[in-house]
Amino acid sequence: MPVSTNQPKFSDDSIKVVALAGGVGGAKMVDGLSQVLIPENLAVVVNTGDDFEHLGLHISPDLDTVCYTLAGIANPDTGWGRANETWQTMKAIEEMGGPTWFRLGDRDLGLHLERTRRMREGQSLSQVTEFFCQVFGIRSRVLPMTDQLVPTRVYTVDGELPFQEYFVHHHCEPKVTGFRFDGIERSKPTKGLLGTIQAADLVIICPSNPWVSIDPILSVPGIRPAVEKSVVLAISPIIGGQTIKGPAAKIYAELGIQPSAQAVAHHYGSLLDGIVLDKVDIGQAENIQKQGIKTCVTDILMKTPSDRTRLAKIVKNFGISLIKRS
Amino acid sequence: MPVSTNQPKFSDDSIKVVALAGGVGGAKMVDGLSQVLIPENLAVVVNTGDDFEHLGLHISPDLDTVCYTLAGIANPDTGWGRANETWQTMKAIEEMGGPTWFRLGDRDLGLHLERTRRMREGQSLSQVTEFFCQVFGIRSRVLPMTDQLVPTRVYTVDGELPFQEYFVHHHCEPKVTGFRFDGIERSKPTKGLLGTIQAADLVIICPSNPWVSIDPILSVPGIRPAVEKSVVLAISPIIGGQTIKGPAAKIYAELGIQPSAQAVAHHYGSLLDGIVLDKVDIGQAENIQKQGIKTCVTDILMKTPSDRTRLAKIVKNFGISLIKRS
Repeated sequence: MPVSTNQPKFSDDSIKVVALAGGVGGAKMVDGLSQVLIPENLAVVVNTGDDFEHLGLHISPDLDTVCYTLAGIANPDTGWGRANETWQTMKAIEEMGGPTWFRLGDRDLGLHLERTRRMREGQSLSQVTEFFCQVFGIRSRVLPMTDQLVPTRVYTVDGELPFQEYFVHHHCEPKVTGFRFDGIERSKPTKGLLGTIQAADLVIICPSNPWVSIDPILSVPGIRPAVEKSVVLAISPIIGGQTIKGPAAKIYAELGIQPSAQAVAHHYGSLLDGIVLDKVDIGQAENIQKQGIKTCVTDILMKTPSDRTRLAKIVKNFGISLIKRS
Repeated sequence: MPVSTNQPKFSDDSIKVVALAGGVGGAKMVDGLSQVLIPENLAVVVNTGDDFEHLGLHISPDLDTVCYTLAGIANPDTGWGRANETWQTMKAIEEMGGPTWFRLGDRDLGLHLERTRRMREGQSLSQVTEFFCQVFGIRSRVLPMTDQLVPTRVYTVDGELPFQEYFVHHHCEPKVTGFRFDGIERSKPTKGLLGTIQAADLVIICPSNPWVSIDPILSVPGIRPAVEKSVVLAISPIIGGQTIKGPAAKIYAELGIQPSAQAVAHHYGSLLDGIVLDKVDIGQAENIQKQGIKTCVTDILMKTPSDRTRLAKIVKNFGISLIKRS
C-alpha cells in the first residue's frame, strides 16, 4: 500500500507493472499481462527459492516456467518444461540406474547445460536469464529475485527437506510445519530490481503459492519495503478452498489455516490495496474489505490462453482503479 | 617381448588377452577379439588421455567408443556416440549460442550426466566404467588406463592445444610438433590393471594412433614394464601410408617420419614380438623382420562386422604362434 501520495503520472495504456511470480499460475498470469500491457512495461520478478543443483546442473524451475511460457514454448500438458519435448537423455539415465525423479527433457536440458556453463564462466543468473530472454524474443523483463542461492527448506513432520525433494520427489506428501529460505538474510535483490519496483505504477502478486513462491521474493532484503510503497494487488491462488496446481491449499490446512481467498488476503495483509478473487468466493469479499483491501470478483481460473488475457484485462483495470484511488 | 621363459600354460581356446586401445580402430578390433576369444578372457585397457570436461561433464571419448562398440550400440555412421541417436539437446544449446563443436547426442548425454554424477559422489572412472559395462551386458573387462586426469596436450606450430580442441574443434589442422600427457608421471594404473597384464598370455596393441592413443597408455608408470614382459603384437593403423580414421599418418608426416607400417613397428621397437600389416605393405615386411619383429600380412581394413572377426581370428592365431615361439 503506498505511503506517499506522490504517485507517478501514467496513462492507462502505458501503465508500468511489476509482477511477482512463482511457477505455473504465475507464468499464465504474466503471459496474459504481457498481452494486455506494453510488453516492455512489464517486469516479472521470479522466485528462485526452488532453484537447486541436479545432475551437476543449475535448475531454476520457476524462472524456466515463466520464460518458456512468455516465449510461447511451454509444455501445455505438464505445466513445466518445453513443448514438443523428447526424453532420450532421461531414458538413457534410467537405463544406467541414475536418478529420474526430476524429469528433464532433451530440449530443456540444453538450457540447463548452457546456463550452468555460463554461470561457471562467471555470469550471474540474471545475466544468463536476460540473454535467454533475448534469444527467446521475450520483450518483458524477467528478473530472478536474487542472484544468490537461497534454497527453500521445508520443515515437515518427517524432518527438513530441500524444496524439490518435498515438491517433486515426495509429491508434497509429508505434512508441512514451516519453511525457511536458507541464507535469504544475506541475499541481495538482482541489479535494477528495486529501481524497477520504485518506477512501477502497480505491483501484481500473481496467483502463486504465498508460502513458497511469493514469501521468498518478499523475504529478499529490500524487496518488501519497496513493494510496500507501491500500489499492490494480488490474485488469489485459492478458488473454493482448492488450488488449481501445487500444494498451497494443502499447506494452509496443514498449518492450521482454512485455505481461502480471505486467508491469502490475510497472509499479505497491509501490503495489499486490492485482491482479485473468484466468483465462488464472493461470500468472502465483505470480510476482506473490512481489512481495508478492495476486492474484484471474477472468474479467475485460467484454462485456455484466452482466459489469461481476459483475466489480465480485468486485473489491469482493477489495478488502474486502485492507482486512481490511492 | 618376454624376458622370462616361464610362460603361463594356456590352451589355444582359453588364451588370455589384454588389448590396448584408443578410439574407432581399437574399438573395432576389440569387438572382433571379443567374438573369437572367451569374452571374459579379454581385458581392454583404454586410453583416457582424450578425456576432458565439457559443459561441466566428464567426457571419455575412447572409453565410450569401446564400450558402445562392445555393447553393439555404437553409431555405425560417425564412429563415435550411440546408434539411433537424436540431437534435441544440441539443437537447444545451439539456439542459445552455446558451444556445439563437440557433438553430444541425447542418449549419449545420459551417460555423461550419470557418469559425472557418480564421479562427483566419489566413484572412480574405473568403477563407473565397470558398472556401465554390467548395464550394457559387456562380458569383457574394460579398464581405463588410469583413474587420474592426464590430459593430452598437442604442441603445434600455432601453440599448445588441449587434445579435443586440436582433434575436434580444429579438425587436426594445426601442424603438430609433439605431445605431452599432463601429469602422467604422477598417475597410477587402475586397480588390477598390472595384474591383468601379468596374467595375460598376449598383449595386443590395437590399430590405434601410436602417438595419442597408445603412447599415453604406455606412459602410465608401470604399464610399459608390465607389457615388456609379455608377448606383444601390434596391428598397424597405417595402410599404404594412410590412416583409415584419424590423424596418425598426418602426424607422422608432420614429425618428419614417412607414415608406414614399418614406422609403426619402429615406434614400438623392442616392445613388439610381432606386427600385423596390410597386403599393400608387404614390401615392408622384410625390413621389419630385420628388427627382430615377426610379421603377419593380411587384409587389415575392417569395413564390415565380419571383417572384425576375420581379422581377429588371424590376430589370435598369429599371437598363439608368437607365444609358442617365445
